[in-house]
Amino acid sequence: MNNTKATWIWYPGDFEMMLFGKCMARRYERDVMIAPFWRMDGYYHTVKFVREFTLSKPDRIRVLAEGEFNISFEGAGYVREFDGCLELPAGTHKMSVLIHNDGGLPCLYMEGEELVTDKAFSVTCQDHTLLPVGSWNFTAERSPNGYRLPERAARFLSERKVAGGTLYDFGREVTARLRLNGLRVGQTVEISYGESQEEALDVLRSEQFDRITASGETVTLPITKTFRYVYLPAAESCRAELLEELPPSPTRSKFRSSDKLLQDIWDTAIRTNELTNREFFIDGGKRDRWSWSGDALQSEWISFYSTFDTEIVKRTVRALGGKSPVATHVNHITDYTLYWILSLYDYYEYTGDLYFVREKFSLAEEYMRFCGGRTTEEGFLNWRPNDWVFIDWADMDNRGETSFEQILYAAALREMSRLAASLGKDGEAYARESRRVFDNTVKVFWKNGAFVHARRDGVLGEKVTRYSNLFAILYGFADEGMRESIVKNVILNDNVQKITTPYMRFYEFIVLCRTGRAREMTEELKKYWGGMLQEGATTFWEQYDPDEKGVKKYAMYDRPYGKSLCHAWGATPVYLIAACLFGIRPAETGYASFVCAPETDVLGDCEILVPTAHGSVRVRIEGGAVEIENENCGGRAELPLRYAKSAPERMIGTENGKVIFRIDRGERVTFVPKED
Amino acid sequence: MNNTKATWIWYPGDFEMMLFGKCMARRYERDVMIAPFWRMDGYYHTVKFVREFTLSKPDRIRVLAEGEFNISFEGAGYVREFDGCLELPAGTHKMSVLIHNDGGLPCLYMEGEELVTDKAFSVTCQDHTLLPVGSWNFTAERSPNGYRLPERAARFLSERKVAGGTLYDFGREVTARLRLNGLRVGQTVEISYGESQEEALDVLRSEQFDRITASGETVTLPITKTFRYVYLPAAESCRAELLEELPPSPTRSKFRSSDKLLQDIWDTAIRTNELTNREFFIDGGKRDRWSWSGDALQSEWISFYSTFDTEIVKRTVRALGGKSPVATHVNHITDYTLYWILSLYDYYEYTGDLYFVREKFSLAEEYMRFCGGRTTEEGFLNWRPNDWVFIDWADMDNRGETSFEQILYAAALREMSRLAASLGKDGEAYARESRRVFDNTVKVFWKNGAFVHARRDGVLGEKVTRYSNLFAILYGFADEGMRESIVKNVILNDNVQKITTPYMRFYEFIVLCRTGRAREMTEELKKYWGGMLQEGATTFWEQYDPDEKGVKKYAMYDRPYGKSLCHAWGATPVYLIAACLFGIRPAETGYASFVCAPETDVLGDCEILVPTAHGSVRVRIEGGAVEIENENCGGRAELPLRYAKSAPERMIGTENGKVIFRIDRGERVTFVPKED
Repeated sequence: MNNTKATWIWYPGDFEMMLFGKCMARRYERDVMIAPFWRMDGYYHTVKFVREFTLSKPDRIRVLAEGEFNISFEGAGYVREFDGCLELPAGTHKMSVLIHNDGGLPCLYMEGEELVTDKAFSVTCQDHTLLPVGSWNFTAERSPNGYRLPERAARFLSERKVAGGTLYDFGREVTARLRLNGLRVGQTVEISYGESQEEALDVLRSEQFDRITASGETVTLPITKTFRYVYLPAAESCRAELLEELPPSPTRSKFRSSDKLLQDIWDTAIRTNELTNREFFIDGGKRDRWSWSGDALQSEWISFYSTFDTEIVKRTVRALGGKSPVATHVNHITDYTLYWILSLYDYYEYTGDLYFVREKFSLAEEYMRFCGGRTTEEGFLNWRPNDWVFIDWADMDNRGETSFEQILYAAALREMSRLAASLGKDGEAYARESRRVFDNTVKVFWKNGAFVHARRDGVLGEKVTRYSNLFAILYGFADEGMRESIVKNVILNDNVQKITTPYMRFYEFIVLCRTGRAREMTEELKKYWGGMLQEGATTFWEQYDPDEKGVKKYAMYDRPYGKSLCHAWGATPVYLIAACLFGIRPAETGYASFVCAPETDVLGDCEILVPTAHGSVRVRIEGGAVEIENENCGGRAELPLRYAKSAPERMIGTENGKVIFRIDRGERVTFVPKED
Repeated sequence: MNNTKATWIWYPGDFEMMLFGKCMARRYERDVMIAPFWRMDGYYHTVKFVREFTLSKPDRIRVLAEGEFNISFEGAGYVREFDGCLELPAGTHKMSVLIHNDGGLPCLYMEGEELVTDKAFSVTCQDHTLLPVGSWNFTAERSPNGYRLPERAARFLSERKVAGGTLYDFGREVTARLRLNGLRVGQTVEISYGESQEEALDVLRSEQFDRITASGETVTLPITKTFRYVYLPAAESCRAELLEELPPSPTRSKFRSSDKLLQDIWDTAIRTNELTNREFFIDGGKRDRWSWSGDALQSEWISFYSTFDTEIVKRTVRALGGKSPVATHVNHITDYTLYWILSLYDYYEYTGDLYFVREKFSLAEEYMRFCGGRTTEEGFLNWRPNDWVFIDWADMDNRGETSFEQILYAAALREMSRLAASLGKDGEAYARESRRVFDNTVKVFWKNGAFVHARRDGVLGEKVTRYSNLFAILYGFADEGMRESIVKNVILNDNVQKITTPYMRFYEFIVLCRTGRAREMTEELKKYWGGMLQEGATTFWEQYDPDEKGVKKYAMYDRPYGKSLCHAWGATPVYLIAACLFGIRPAETGYASFVCAPETDVLGDCEILVPTAHGSVRVRIEGGAVEIENENCGGRAELPLRYAKSAPERMIGTENGKVIFRIDRGERVTFVPKED
């Protein structure tokens, strides 16, 4: 009997190319479809699967394939008069299945007693290279070509008459398809959606709008929208309900806190994350519904503390990386190519999945060659007409060379050297270049105790921004003196331009924690994300400026409701709480062991459960006692020194004013502090 | 008013990728679909068309697109509430149309009074590169996604009862879909096709076989077959008729000869060419229905003397070249990559179409880099496990280095240098390498007045074959002494292994002509192709060995009817008669002028009309007088010296025992010989 379950298989990465094309074209601005402005790669329509296997007894194998196909066996040739099942004798067989699918993904499913389609199959696009197949969890009944996220029927919380129409309120943000009942055939219905009530009621200017002509009594809209409110300006007798689209995998983490605000922030961040976890990590549910590598990196970090859905990470990395030949930066953004490299490395750190690193490594190398081909003599990535240097939505001039890109580049180079090493390759050239880029960055941009933002035409600017300074600490490039200087001169300096996106505030908050300011970070976190809650947020926003009040706060991109009120990068409190305040992270690649370093003085009574690559870790803080319970892997706790006496037999050592305890596999341990 | 007609437009090359995938998967061996074993590239599903244009007055533009799309104008943004027509004011507009098509080719059609979709549009796959669009002759009613060759109803010439079934005979080879009438619903019918009667009647072993279950009284088979005979073993009341599939363009050449055999050979070659001119040049109608670069080069040469269909040439070159990155040889065959380069150059020679050279040049360079990366120190292309060195179907060992590949490589390198020059680029590096490769080939392989076939592990073989020796003359590398030596030691030497495929005999016949043996060539041509006619051929075969008689002659590849009896490379008498015996060819790139050098002493009374890039050339030989009539371009005639006195005012000079006359544009000139 086989040990693995049969799944559909395909050419690696091609399911993602096919699905990415479909999903990215689902962005609509009212009646206008808006597909991305970067290259979306096609996929192979003709591929060949091969497998050598041995049957201990005769087997009857059911075969499903999408596309025209043939099956052949070495020595026996093509299978003729094929009726859907293969009857094979015991023994060793060398099988090939060639599939051509004009309009979709060529894919294969086989299920016998001893042979099933699984990762043991190889595939080729017939370029003389055999690759491990792509696969997931598709069963006989559900092929990759028909993949859809699950849906469930849902009802609005309330409805009321406004200006002759009906305003529906779901009570919170949702991604769903609308279903209208009680229609007259031929009746035209206009539908205005809103993340805010103001938007839904502003029928001519809402970002999401449908106009349908009823073909029957009930009409279900084909494409989901993301909204809280729906307004039918002239709905007459029709009634609206929903098909809510669910994320691809459930949230596996839990957080319970006696701090109501922190609890609300967590819950709202989780909801935000769920709505931006679709087939891929997307930036926002309403706008722009695309995957962006910089945003996706944060979603990935969040996923490790919520769903631990490794498949959505891989899908997104595959889709964003696209296919060789590399001709542009990922998303056309220089920073985003570098984040793409980092996302591959971080995935490896949390999962230890060398299989995936191997799949993507040559493309990663091609991206690094692409970057290397666009550097100055100092090794700097500079602004070029077609290379968007994004950094953040804020007032800044990124032409010339920015210190931020160089530090991010140095980080990507260093992680490439580590990825190379993970595959047993020599990554020293990457490591060397990383050091050179950072050293030159210091030489050029470090002035008066901070990194200056940019140099243009050889002239160093005067403006200091937070970004490069944060990243020098975040990626561990800054030494102790630099760190102190950056904290004082930049991070705690109110004269340095403030960050208004959750995107970059996130990194600032991590750095606050890293530099021993967990309490300040938590206060700021509650102020910033709490501010959105006070404004009525049920998911977190793309941008938040406490000074913007009323309907004005919904505007962005010169559009009155252009701002996304459910944006992936708004969900980072999940990471800030779990990874920074509880300090839970892998101690070794692939979560072979974990570390837990809770900020006991900041957190108050609370409890968290987070998934790991092999199970979960639960931490409870109550009346000063810290209980840590872990499944399937051991690790260590880093606690203030006053816990030292509670379990001396477990002490490993002390470090930076903390005592380090051993926690064995599958154990629950409680540490009780002794007040000095 | 616009001058060009509206046509559908697309990303260049992608129509061909889409169509190639479909067509190449139409090869069936009985019930088994057999798609090619080389990489078939996908195509972009999301592309953006752009156009800047000026309207002298308001215009109403009809828009058709396949896929979801949006239209935007610089300054005005997206077109909203689009109803199928654009109403534009006079003035200058910068327009973008972004199309996403999940399951097919994204393509666009626009038709206004002043603006139409045509070659003036550009397109991008959003890699920062704008390319001229792909287009052809698709009108509003007929989009590239629905492209099919034309069909016409046809009837069998005869039918008769054989062994309880019905044998239909079309009288000659045809490519067609069968239509069965008079069926009972649910009735199962078996259909055995044959290029020969023997094959059709051999129901269990015929190469093409269908089994259908009737869903109605009439069933039309979905996929064409190529055959002369159809046998229905148990057809009862059902009657068969045909939908004959026509080639994409008509034969424009004519040949009339008093020599009945030569006339039959021409007509049969033309029929062979028509049946192997489908969406692409394919090798055979029955088997294997694929495009092969070496075969396609011959089809291309034939096309210049039959259809002058430049579109099928471009389609085939695009499809076989595929997309970057180059990972294997064209068709996996080393020689075939080189033929692909030659096919691009020859296309340029006959058409002068720099637009297409520009489209394919960077891919050609990539192929040359690919070859250059697989050479030895001497610059030789040697046999490698994944690189099939084909040369010809014959008994030979192509491992190690073959002299043939080197001479072909030298030819490809030289033509690359010329293609580079045509685009104003420096091609000297290619020219230099070409000379080096040929010089080293002489150094290594030239022994006792002939090129030896191969060297393996540093040891030169003893076997001499015709191939490299022919090509050294064909591509003008051999000097006078070498030519004489090759003719004597190889071509006229019966001890050197004979060629049995029309594929390589073709080159041998050209060389016979080039070395002053037109009469011998003509006799051999009549013997070889005439031999197939005597065996009952209605189209020419993949291979012909006069010693194989009876049903045995249909066998190949260890299959009783494996031989293709309608094979593209059988059609070369069209070229041999038109280009070699009449000597009609471009005198300058793009047929700016032509040359006509008829073998008056060989041809007898006859007449030929061949198309050129700008019109046609007609040559009539009657009672020794040669009349040359040309449309739209001037040129020259090369005739035996005895014609010199007939038109002294037109004489340009003499060369190689021939006198050269000027022929002006659009003229008809008669030359009358004065017997010495």
